[in-house]
Amino acid sequence: MELNTKCCLQLPAWVEPFVASRQGPLSTTSERMQLAIDLAGENVRQGTGGPFGALVVNEANGELVALGVNLVTSSGLSIAHAEIVALTLAQASVGEWNLSHGDPLQLVTSCEPCAMCFGAVPWSGIKSLVCGARKKDAEAAGFDEGDKPGHWVRSLQRRGIVVQCSVLRDQAAAVLASYREGGGTIYNAGNTGDDPK
Amino acid sequence: MELNTKCCLQLPAWVEPFVASRQGPLSTTSERMQLAIDLAGENVRQGTGGPFGALVVNEANGELVALGVNLVTSSGLSIAHAEIVALTLAQASVGEWNLSHGDPLQLVTSCEPCAMCFGAVPWSGIKSLVCGARKKDAEAAGFDEGDKPGHWVRSLQRRGIVVQCSVLRDQAAAVLASYREGGGTIYNAGNTGDDPK
Repeated sequence: MELNTKCCLQLPAWVEPFVASRQGPLSTTSERMQLAIDLAGENVRQGTGGPFGALVVNEANGELVALGVNLVTSSGLSIAHAEIVALTLAQASVGEWNLSHGDPLQLVTSCEPCAMCFGAVPWSGIKSLVCGARKKDAEAAGFDEGDKPGHWVRSLQRRGIVVQCSVLRDQAAAVLASYREGGGTIYNAGNTGDDPK
Repeated sequence: MELNTKCCLQLPAWVEPFVASRQGPLSTTSERMQLAIDLAGENVRQGTGGPFGALVVNEANGELVALGVNLVTSSGLSIAHAEIVALTLAQASVGEWNLSHGDPLQLVTSCEPCAMCFGAVPWSGIKSLVCGARKKDAEAAGFDEGDKPGHWVRSLQRRGIVVQCSVLRDQAAAVLASYREGGGTIYNAGNTGDDPK
């Protein structure tokens, strides 16, 4: 087998015009979450991945720093969750791995991070995390979100990261439920880890 | 700020000739771990990232599927841990996000996965995980490895992933200690999350 040495994450072409066409201010947490949810929904409609959207914004003024949508099925990469895409593109824009050097940045995600994305947050330098749907909403749609420590919010807070959950949760969860009803791909790799009864 | 829409992970140019020059069989767990440790050490010598190396191999015959080294400082991306690079390049080689479809694949890493890389494992489809140094070895070097659930090994095993820890641990930990002594960059983004005394 020839070894691959390079691999890229790239937003689908629809994302930029979609965001440009609806760009209002992102001054409030609700406005930011609404955009994350809209990205999740449009990602499903466009067939470019799972029902998850995210953004990185300047916490104070809402300036957009990066967008992310789930690209697992379209990129063929299991790490391509919306949060990973948004954080990675934010770092590419800023030009360094540590997002904590300028104005405080915020990660807004349409769903509570899975175990991987939870672990990615402290390494990134973002200063706050805003989540829409809860883990159980994603699990109800069929996704195996993995095991975070029970004290995951405190784990982030201890690292100076402010966490806010369940923002527009019903709307965010509706995108997940609709994905499942529509027969969307549930990209668990294998055993979902449910304890046998 | 202009929004970035694409971002790539790429192995440094030294990796392929380095591996080609020393390629023996990878039939045993020790041989596989030795290569992961050697990649970690060479990554430090080359100045291309932190003291971590990883590989994805065919569990049964040791055929190499992908290599990974830590590229956080050289790529400017906080997700660019050795395990993430190896899993991602393996998926790029195989052509799909689910590595569980062919022969069982194994992730061999010079250090127990951090919280992010732990969370990435179940999504990837690998069937076994072999680790060298322990979390406390990485923490002794200064890295904030994040919080995994206390039952992280069981969490993976419940998902059908076999876990083996502390393979050539002393050698693997020595690379970490040497990195710290050499003044290598410790790329924690901020507060390390230690509970205040």
